[in-house]
Amino acid sequence: MNASFALKGNVCHTPAPGRLEIRERGIVVCEDGVCRGVFDAVPERFAHLEVVDCGDRLILPGLVDLHTHAPQYAFCGTGMDYELMDWLYKVAFPEEIRYADAAYAEKAYGIFAQKLKEGATTRAVIFGTMHADATLTLMDLMEQCGVASLVGKVNMDRYAPAELTEPGAEQAAADTRRFIESCLKRGYVRTGPIVTPRFVPSCTDALMEKLGEIRREYDLPVQSHLSENPDEVAFVGELAPEAAFYGDAYDRFGLFGGDSRTVMAHCVYSTPEEVQRMLDNGVWVAHCPSSNMNIASGIAPARRYLEKGLHMGLGTDVSGGSSISMFRAVTDAIQVSKMYWRYIDRDAKPLTFPEALYLATKGGGSFFGSIGSFEDGFVFDAIVLDDAAEPSPRPLSAADRLERAFYRELDRTGITMKFVDGIKVI
Amino acid sequence: MNASFALKGNVCHTPAPGRLEIRERGIVVCEDGVCRGVFDAVPERFAHLEVVDCGDRLILPGLVDLHTHAPQYAFCGTGMDYELMDWLYKVAFPEEIRYADAAYAEKAYGIFAQKLKEGATTRAVIFGTMHADATLTLMDLMEQCGVASLVGKVNMDRYAPAELTEPGAEQAAADTRRFIESCLKRGYVRTGPIVTPRFVPSCTDALMEKLGEIRREYDLPVQSHLSENPDEVAFVGELAPEAAFYGDAYDRFGLFGGDSRTVMAHCVYSTPEEVQRMLDNGVWVAHCPSSNMNIASGIAPARRYLEKGLHMGLGTDVSGGSSISMFRAVTDAIQVSKMYWRYIDRDAKPLTFPEALYLATKGGGSFFGSIGSFEDGFVFDAIVLDDAAEPSPRPLSAADRLERAFYRELDRTGITMKFVDGIKVI
Repeated sequence: MNASFALKGNVCHTPAPGRLEIRERGIVVCEDGVCRGVFDAVPERFAHLEVVDCGDRLILPGLVDLHTHAPQYAFCGTGMDYELMDWLYKVAFPEEIRYADAAYAEKAYGIFAQKLKEGATTRAVIFGTMHADATLTLMDLMEQCGVASLVGKVNMDRYAPAELTEPGAEQAAADTRRFIESCLKRGYVRTGPIVTPRFVPSCTDALMEKLGEIRREYDLPVQSHLSENPDEVAFVGELAPEAAFYGDAYDRFGLFGGDSRTVMAHCVYSTPEEVQRMLDNGVWVAHCPSSNMNIASGIAPARRYLEKGLHMGLGTDVSGGSSISMFRAVTDAIQVSKMYWRYIDRDAKPLTFPEALYLATKGGGSFFGSIGSFEDGFVFDAIVLDDAAEPSPRPLSAADRLERAFYRELDRTGITMKFVDGIKVI
Repeated sequence: MNASFALKGNVCHTPAPGRLEIRERGIVVCEDGVCRGVFDAVPERFAHLEVVDCGDRLILPGLVDLHTHAPQYAFCGTGMDYELMDWLYKVAFPEEIRYADAAYAEKAYGIFAQKLKEGATTRAVIFGTMHADATLTLMDLMEQCGVASLVGKVNMDRYAPAELTEPGAEQAAADTRRFIESCLKRGYVRTGPIVTPRFVPSCTDALMEKLGEIRREYDLPVQSHLSENPDEVAFVGELAPEAAFYGDAYDRFGLFGGDSRTVMAHCVYSTPEEVQRMLDNGVWVAHCPSSNMNIASGIAPARRYLEKGLHMGLGTDVSGGSSISMFRAVTDAIQVSKMYWRYIDRDAKPLTFPEALYLATKGGGSFFGSIGSFEDGFVFDAIVLDDAAEPSPRPLSAADRLERAFYRELDRTGITMKFVDGIKVI
């Protein structure tokens, strides 16, 4: 049921880190939801396709948000004067408790899904809460809104308020199975479940073991948090003394790459051993610069991760992150990389705009498959961006317009068309 | 000719650093352009005034942009992959050369003035270019748009492209006098000239001496750049070996506070001696976090400056800064202060939202006089902000709504009324 068509406009994508390719007034072809590449003119074999003329607009791959918390959007941009642990207990957990209420969840998630739909994000990896029903409501809304996603019912059975603490590993596992079975029954086409231990401090070994079993049984991907904050890393060292490093506390339960497609948010303080294990196991990094600033965590060494060839994308991490905009995530990633270079490692060159754009598209997209580029064979996720509301006293190159659109966050109001899997969402 | 009226709504202001006062459904009174304070209800003596009901909207003092470059708005958000000196020569100077063309200047400055008018900024301290005529055009447009400003014709007679290099100190001084005389003749009510040596590397001693004379003669304020980047600071050390520190190279010519009201942008690398001189001379710091990130300069120790009691406000520094939004400047200041705390000085507590809001209002406003607060006797600069386009699943406090408005940059589209000196601009 996917459409076949061609878009005409200024086609921009980054098939490799730092390699920004722009075809002004070019053509990008979508055939049954699959991208067939970028051309100067419609190739003979696609002559039968409708050509949608986007005029002078910018056409780029949809952006992939590798890490965000849907229930936290309700307070996005408030409570920002705390550090991680305080923030969790004073701001994040009190909000998440509200999602026991189905009506509240539907209202709040409706706002979240609508925001995501209007923006540049075409795919997202999302935390819900520990409430299975509310998380299913979120998935229904995501499916309807047209943005593709992997959504997790959060698991946590310790160090949380009573209302958010699952009553033991057995019960948590049973609820999680029920959640997954419900997802599968609903027959979503662009929405799927992902195994979601909140983070090591929130999960007993018994719960981790169950989640490892569930992951294998259903062959599901995994998301969690890793090495975000020095205090948290130290706490994990106390909680899991048998783990060689933070990530090893997931790996012991089969929740850290290898057979399981895994994305770990943050990785600000990953040790060389942890980074090596991530490389060996093919774990994705969700680099979340806004959140890492807001909760005063630090700056992840994105340049080093790029050099090592780690899988990496960007996450908004709403609402440690204070913006749901992936355009903002791109420029935040560049800005913090400059501070990293200035103050922490003068050999770690700042990220360039084309590198950060790569992370936000193909870098994160790879977690979903062949996503985030207009190369032949890639899934057709795309956005069309109108920047006419930003006048310029002189003509700008498409490259300048593209960079400007990100720094000025034109994804707020400038997305005029959006395609996910070849399907028109806007 | 100033209006007298009262506004009713959620009145927010920060009369002291970190002291956020909010009167929900309160009244703020403007009498002949002067604020008469915040009240629960209209006081008897103001009973004759019209009360403008702003409903549930937020009412706050207008924001003061202490440092921005009008000609650079044309490329704002492009060319961000450079460091200071490269950026100047490859991005900034080539644009500034265009302002020799009157038609270009009018077009570009028209866009700038319109943007400023629509946003939260009520007062700004602005760099033009070295072109007197273009800078006068900018001032005409600023006067028309209603935002109050101090605008400088830039002086530079070395280390710049030929087209931007003034032909010797005598000629530069003559042009600058002509510029100032023209300003005075035009009878602006909210726009004034400010003496503007670009920065020490761009100005010979002979030019500095002339500018010091002109400043005294016309009793004008001064703006420039200070201790922005390590390479620049080292270069100034070579250029002005007789100066005890960077700022002393201005002070020797009477361009660093004392009799002259002076604002210096950046102050990222100010030495203790420089900071002490700024304190002694009453120099204002324009803290420009966005620019300091984008050009990879570093992070100014804003917490330390606050503690020492330095005059300080925030600047967007368009277009080293990539956003003209003062809301963004507020949250940028908070975010970089967290990185400063994390990586540079663990005793320098991050800025809180109320502290950063103070800097953006009363802190910077003090450069203009009694500006940036709703205290009795302050000039009535105010904005009314509608955040209804950001739905929430539950009622938010006015304090949360205010913080959220800044993090979500609702100044882009949410300013529904704006007053400068009691005059309605929007």
